[in-house]
Amino acid sequence: MSSIWGRHFTIDIFGESHGPKIGAVINGLHPGTELDFPQIRAFLDRRRAGSEAWSTKRHEADDFEIVSGYANGFSTGTPLCVLFHNNAQRSSDYDERLNRPGHADYTGYVRYNGFNDPRGGGHFSGRLTAPLVFAGAVAAQVLSKKSIYAATHIRRIADVEDAAFDLTSITHQQAQSLAAMRFPLIDEAKRAAMETQIKQAAAEGDSVGGIVECAVCGLPAGLGSPMFDTAESRLASLLFAIPAVKGISFGSGFGFAQMRGSEANDAYAVKDGKIVTETNHNGGILGGITSGMPVVFEAVIKPTPSISKPQQTVNLKTITQETASVKGRHDACIVPRAAAVIEAAANVCMLDLMTERGL
Amino acid sequence: MSSIWGRHFTIDIFGESHGPKIGAVINGLHPGTELDFPQIRAFLDRRRAGSEAWSTKRHEADDFEIVSGYANGFSTGTPLCVLFHNNAQRSSDYDERLNRPGHADYTGYVRYNGFNDPRGGGHFSGRLTAPLVFAGAVAAQVLSKKSIYAATHIRRIADVEDAAFDLTSITHQQAQSLAAMRFPLIDEAKRAAMETQIKQAAAEGDSVGGIVECAVCGLPAGLGSPMFDTAESRLASLLFAIPAVKGISFGSGFGFAQMRGSEANDAYAVKDGKIVTETNHNGGILGGITSGMPVVFEAVIKPTPSISKPQQTVNLKTITQETASVKGRHDACIVPRAAAVIEAAANVCMLDLMTERGL
Amino acid sequence: MSSIWGRHFTIDIFGESHGPKIGAVINGLHPGTELDFPQIRAFLDRRRAGSEAWSTKRHEADDFEIVSGYANGFSTGTPLCVLFHNNAQRSSDYDERLNRPGHADYTGYVRYNGFNDPRGGGHFSGRLTAPLVFAGAVAAQVLSKKSIYAATHIRRIADVEDAAFDLTSITHQQAQSLAAMRFPLIDEAKRAAMETQIKQAAAEGDSVGGIVECAVCGLPAGLGSPMFDTAESRLASLLFAIPAVKGISFGSGFGFAQMRGSEANDAYAVKDGKIVTETNHNGGILGGITSGMPVVFEAVIKPTPSISKPQQTVNLKTITQETASVKGRHDACIVPRAAAVIEAAANVCMLDLMTERGL
Amino acid sequence: MSSIWGRHFTIDIFGESHGPKIGAVINGLHPGTELDFPQIRAFLDRRRAGSEAWSTKRHEADDFEIVSGYANGFSTGTPLCVLFHNNAQRSSDYDERLNRPGHADYTGYVRYNGFNDPRGGGHFSGRLTAPLVFAGAVAAQVLSKKSIYAATHIRRIADVEDAAFDLTSITHQQAQSLAAMRFPLIDEAKRAAMETQIKQAAAEGDSVGGIVECAVCGLPAGLGSPMFDTAESRLASLLFAIPAVKGISFGSGFGFAQMRGSEANDAYAVKDGKIVTETNHNGGILGGITSGMPVVFEAVIKPTPSISKPQQTVNLKTITQETASVKGRHDACIVPRAAAVIEAAANVCMLDLMTERGL
Repeated sequence: MSSIWGRHFTIDIFGESHGPKIGAVINGLHPGTELDFPQIRAFLDRRRAGSEAWSTKRHEADDFEIVSGYANGFSTGTPLCVLFHNNAQRSSDYDERLNRPGHADYTGYVRYNGFNDPRGGGHFSGRLTAPLVFAGAVAAQVLSKKSIYAATHIRRIADVEDAAFDLTSITHQQAQSLAAMRFPLIDEAKRAAMETQIKQAAAEGDSVGGIVECAVCGLPAGLGSPMFDTAESRLASLLFAIPAVKGISFGSGFGFAQMRGSEANDAYAVKDGKIVTETNHNGGILGGITSGMPVVFEAVIKPTPSISKPQQTVNLKTITQETASVKGRHDACIVPRAAAVIEAAANVCMLDLMTERGL
Repeated sequence: MSSIWGRHFTIDIFGESHGPKIGAVINGLHPGTELDFPQIRAFLDRRRAGSEAWSTKRHEADDFEIVSGYANGFSTGTPLCVLFHNNAQRSSDYDERLNRPGHADYTGYVRYNGFNDPRGGGHFSGRLTAPLVFAGAVAAQVLSKKSIYAATHIRRIADVEDAAFDLTSITHQQAQSLAAMRFPLIDEAKRAAMETQIKQAAAEGDSVGGIVECAVCGLPAGLGSPMFDTAESRLASLLFAIPAVKGISFGSGFGFAQMRGSEANDAYAVKDGKIVTETNHNGGILGGITSGMPVVFEAVIKPTPSISKPQQTVNLKTITQETASVKGRHDACIVPRAAAVIEAAANVCMLDLMTERGL
Repeated sequence: MSSIWGRHFTIDIFGESHGPKIGAVINGLHPGTELDFPQIRAFLDRRRAGSEAWSTKRHEADDFEIVSGYANGFSTGTPLCVLFHNNAQRSSDYDERLNRPGHADYTGYVRYNGFNDPRGGGHFSGRLTAPLVFAGAVAAQVLSKKSIYAATHIRRIADVEDAAFDLTSITHQQAQSLAAMRFPLIDEAKRAAMETQIKQAAAEGDSVGGIVECAVCGLPAGLGSPMFDTAESRLASLLFAIPAVKGISFGSGFGFAQMRGSEANDAYAVKDGKIVTETNHNGGILGGITSGMPVVFEAVIKPTPSISKPQQTVNLKTITQETASVKGRHDACIVPRAAAVIEAAANVCMLDLMTERGL
Repeated sequence: MSSIWGRHFTIDIFGESHGPKIGAVINGLHPGTELDFPQIRAFLDRRRAGSEAWSTKRHEADDFEIVSGYANGFSTGTPLCVLFHNNAQRSSDYDERLNRPGHADYTGYVRYNGFNDPRGGGHFSGRLTAPLVFAGAVAAQVLSKKSIYAATHIRRIADVEDAAFDLTSITHQQAQSLAAMRFPLIDEAKRAAMETQIKQAAAEGDSVGGIVECAVCGLPAGLGSPMFDTAESRLASLLFAIPAVKGISFGSGFGFAQMRGSEANDAYAVKDGKIVTETNHNGGILGGITSGMPVVFEAVIKPTPSISKPQQTVNLKTITQETASVKGRHDACIVPRAAAVIEAAANVCMLDLMTERGL
C-alpha cells in the first residue's frame, strides 16, 4: 500500500510525471465540509514553479477537477477524488533510460524490473506532490475552523541562515504573512544572499540544498500515541515521502546532542489557567504525544539532483560507465517550493491525528 | 494500533515499566527459523544497564520466555510471543503523580484521561525497548543468513565527536567489534573525553545527549517503495518510537543543506560487474528505495529527562506550580544503551522490507 | 479506509452514481503485466445492463480510461488509476430525498449527517461495481497465466434451482462457456422457468432474488492464514462489499448443519503424486487455508430493492410516514449481473492472497 | 498480520493448543474502563467444556492473568495483554503427524512448510478462541454501559430446529436468560431431540453440526461504511476466524433468494419519534450500515472433524494413503460452545465499529 497514507484522513496518490493525469483519492474528510477553492488554488500556487531565476520553466497550470465526494457545495463523506491534468510535459527533454545520479532512476529500475515509467521520474516525480498539496490545503481549511494553523519558512539555503521560529509562540499573522511569500523568510534581509547562492549554482549548471522549518500551532494536547504511533513517527513517515527530504528533527533537533537535561527539559508553568511550557525544546511533543505547544520541526532538502553539469553514471542497459548531463527545465533550488509541500504534509498529518481522537 | 508496527514482519509491544510482565507478539517470522539464544541474550545485554558510572543502578535480568510460535527448536510461522518479567522495579522511588519535565507524564495524562500507569513512565518507559531489542536480535539472525549486518556506534556525546563511518564500506568485522563494546566507538580514544562529560553532568545531577550512527550493510537494491513506503519513511516511523529520539537523518543528513548537487549526487560506477556508487551521500536510499549501498542514518538522542536537579513543574491535580526533583536510579547518559535499541529497530525494519519483497 | 481493500493487491474505489466519473486506484499489480483490453471489456460487458427483459434500461458504455500505472504497453508497478465516465445518468428520475426501503438512503443519511450524495444511491450505487469488475478482469489475466480460473453461475432465482457445481472438478472449458453466457447456467433448461419468475415479478412492479455459485480452480494449497486472515475471512470481507449480498457460505455451506462429521470430512487421496481430497465439502479451504481443491462458495443476492410497487416509508426531513414508489429504470433481477461482480471479486481476492505468498 | 483484527479496538491473538500459554493483546480499550471479572469468567465458562455428554473431557480452568494495560482497578488505555495457561493438554493423545481429514493438518503443513505445531491443532486449535471470548467479554461490558447487548442461541443441531428470533425485538431479559444456559435455546422443548442426535452421533464415533443465531440490540444507526467496511464485511471477517464456521448470513439470509423485493424491503415507520422498520429482513444493516434495528446473523458450524470413526487420509511424510482414527477427548457437537465464541466476536466487532465513530 505504498501510495496510501493515513489512518482516518487518508490519501492515495497516483500518477506519473508525463502520464495524462495525476491525482489523489482522499478518504475520511468529514461530511459537510465546504471547500474554499480560491484558498486551495493559492496553496497550490505556493508549490508551483514561477518566473523566478531559481525555478524550472515547466509551468503546470495545476487546474484540478474533483470527480467524486463533493456534491451540492459540500463534501459527502465518501471518497473525494481529485484529478490534475498534465499538459506541460516535454518528454523529448528526457532520455528515457538516462540513469541520473541522485535520482530514483536506478533504484526504480531495480524495484520495478525496468517497467517503471522513467519519463520525468514517473511516479517518483516531484510533480506528484501537487495532489499532496491539494490534500494539505483541504486539511488546512478543516483545521483553521478549530483555530489550528501552520507556518513555514526557509531556515537555510546553502550557507545562508534565516532566523529561527520562537518555538513557544508563532502568531497566526506571521503564518499568514509567510504563506503569502513565494520565498518565505522570517528575516527578509537574508533573501538577497540566498538568491545569490542559488544564481551562482545555476550559472555553474549546479544546484543547492536547504532546510525548511515548519510549525503547527493551536493543536490540543493529547494527539498521537506511545510506541509506534508517536506524532513524530506519523509526521516523519509522511514527510519522508516528499522527494529530496533526507532528515527530520523536532524542536531543538540535532542540537539536543549538545544540551544538558536541565536545559532540554521544558519547565511547566500555568498561564491563563492552562498548563504550558516556558520553553519548547521538545517541539510540542513529549513521549510521542502533543503537549499543546507548537509542533515544530525541520526538514533538510538535498540539492536538486537534476543538474546540467556532466556527471559519471552507468548505463542501465549496457552496464557500462557513461557521462550524464540532465537537460530540460529544472529548479536550481527546490527549497521554496518544498516549503509549501512540507506545510501541506503537516496539515494532512495533523488532521489525521485530530480525526483519530474524534476532534 | 499504536503499539503494532510492520507490514510483513510485525511487532506488537505491550507492558508497563512496573507491571508484572512486558513483551511482544511477533508476526511474520519465517517458519523453520532456528534461533540462537545466546546471541539474543548478548544483544539484550547491550541494552541492559551496567555497572558503568553513567548507567542506572536498576538492573533487570532481561530473562525472556517464549510462550508461542516456537516448537521443537524452530519457529512455527504463527505468532511468537515473548515475555519479560519485571522484578527490579522499586515503585517507592516514584511519586506517582509527579509531572516530570521532558517526560510523557503530562501528555500521557491528557491522552489517557489520567488513567495511564505513571509508575516509571508506564507504557512510555524505556523498559519497553527490551522486547523491541528481542525482535531486532531475532531479525538480525534471519538477516545474517543473507549476509546482511548492522553496525552502530556513538557518533557524539555532548561536545565530543567520534569518527564517522565510511559511508561506502563498513566491514562485517567492524560491525562485530562495535557490537562487542558496551560503549561502541570507531575511535576509542574519544571514550575518555565522553565519559568525562557524562560524569560531570552526573555529578551535577544532570544528564547529556548524543548522536548514534547506524549502518545496515549487504542489503539488495530495490527495497522500499515510492511515496509513503520509502525506506526512510518506514525506518523513521519505527525509530521515532524509541524514547528520546528527536531527529533522524540519512546519509549526509542535515549536511545536505550546504552541499551542491554535484557533490551530493553519488556517481555510479561498475565494480565486479555490479552497479555501485562511488560515494554514498544518499545513505543507500534513492527515491525511497535501497540502492545496494549501506543504508546509513543518524539519530539524535536528547539528554535523559530524569535528573535530580530541581526543576519547575506543574502539579497535575492542583494545577499549581511546584518544584520537581526526580529521585531513583537513572542514566546520566542513555546514548550507549540507545545504540543497541536503534540497531535492533533497523534490523526489524529491514527484515520487514525484505519480507515484503519475498526475500 | 472504508473504500480501500486488500493487503498486497489493493483497490481503492471512488465515485458516485451520478457524479462525473467513478474509478479505482489499483496498487500492487506486478510490473510488466500486459493487459488484454478486449478481455477486460468482455468482462465488463457481463456486468452491464442489456436488452433483456429483466435488465435496467440505463445503459452505460463502461468505457474506461487508464490514467496512470500503465506505460508502453505494460503495467509500471506503481498505482494504476482507471476512470469511467458517467454519461447515462438521468437524475430527474430520482427524488433526491426519497427514502427507499431496502436501500441505504436512511442509513447513508445518518452515517454522513445528510451530506451523502443521494442521486442514484451515490457512493452506495451498484454502478460502483464497474471499477471492481475492472480490477477483477485485470486479476483474472494475471491468474490465468498461472492456470487459475474462476467459474460462476446462477445457482437459484426465486424458486428455480440450477444444477450445482461438481465441487471437485470444474473444467476450464466449463468456466469459459459460463463466462460467455449473459445468463450463466449449468443446466440451460432452467432458464425459461427463471425468466418467467423474473417477468412475473417485473409485471407486478416487483423484483426477485437468487443465489450465485462461484468456484476458483487451479489455486495452490497454502493460501490464507489461520485466525483473522483465513481465505474465508478475506473473501467474505470483499464479497459483502457488493450491494445486495446478504450471505456467504463455503463448500457445503449451510448444509453442513445437517451433516455428520464422517460425511463432511473430505477423505484424502493421492492422485498423480499429488494430495487431493475425494470430495470437497469444505470448498477448498481447511483451517482458513486453501487445500488445492477448487475454492467454491455461494452468495445470496437479495431481491433488488428498487421496485415500482408502492411501499411505506418515512420522509427523512419531516419524519412522517409517506408512500414511496421507485421510478426509473431498474433491474427486476440483478442476479445475472451480480454473478460477474462476484467472480471479479473472487479474482481480486485470490490475486491478493497469491501476491502475499510471493506467487 | 494474520492474527491481528480490528481498526480501533484491536485484538492480537497468539499461542498454540499445547504451548505453555496462549493470550491476546488488546489495543484501543478506552482508558478508565473498570472490568467486572466475575462476568468475564462467566462468559468464559459458556465456552468451556462441561460435563455434558456432548462435550470433550479436556477441561481447561481458563484462569487468565492480565499482565499489562490494567492498573489500580482501571484500564490504562495502553495495550492490555491477557494470558491463559495451558495445563490440561495431553499431547500423548496426538499422533504428531496424523493428517486428520476436515482439519488444518494438511493445509497448515503446506502453509508453514511443515514447521507448524501440530499438537492439538497448534495455532489452529479451538483453544485459541478463549482469548477471543475474553476480548468479547470485555467488549460486552463496555457496550452494556451504552445499553447494547447481544443474544445468542442454537438455531439448529442436525435435523432439529429451534425457534428463530423475532428480528425486530429481542429483549435484554431474553439475552440474559440465553446467556445463562449452557445449551441456549428459545424453545427449550427442543433440547431433548437435539441431545438425542448428538448422543447417537457420539455413540457411532461421529459428530454433528448446526447453526447459531446471534443478535446485537441497542446499536445506533450509522455504524459501518459503504464499500469495503460494511458492517457485514467487518463481522464476517471476524466470524470466519472461528474454527468450523463455514457460512454467515444476515437477516433473512439465504431465504432472500426466494423472496420478492416487496417482501424483503423493510417498511419504515415512526415509533416514539424514532425511525424504525416494521420488519427486519435486512438484519439491521442496509448498504453496509446499521439501521438501528437489531443486527441479526446466522453462522453455520460444520460437524467437529475430530471423530473416532476410521477415515481415509494421506500420510504427509510418506505421501501414501492410510487410515486415521482421531483419539482423545473431543466434542461430538461443538455448537453450544461455539455460540459463546460467536457472541464474543460480535461484541468485539461492534465495539470496534462504535469506537470508529467515537461512540
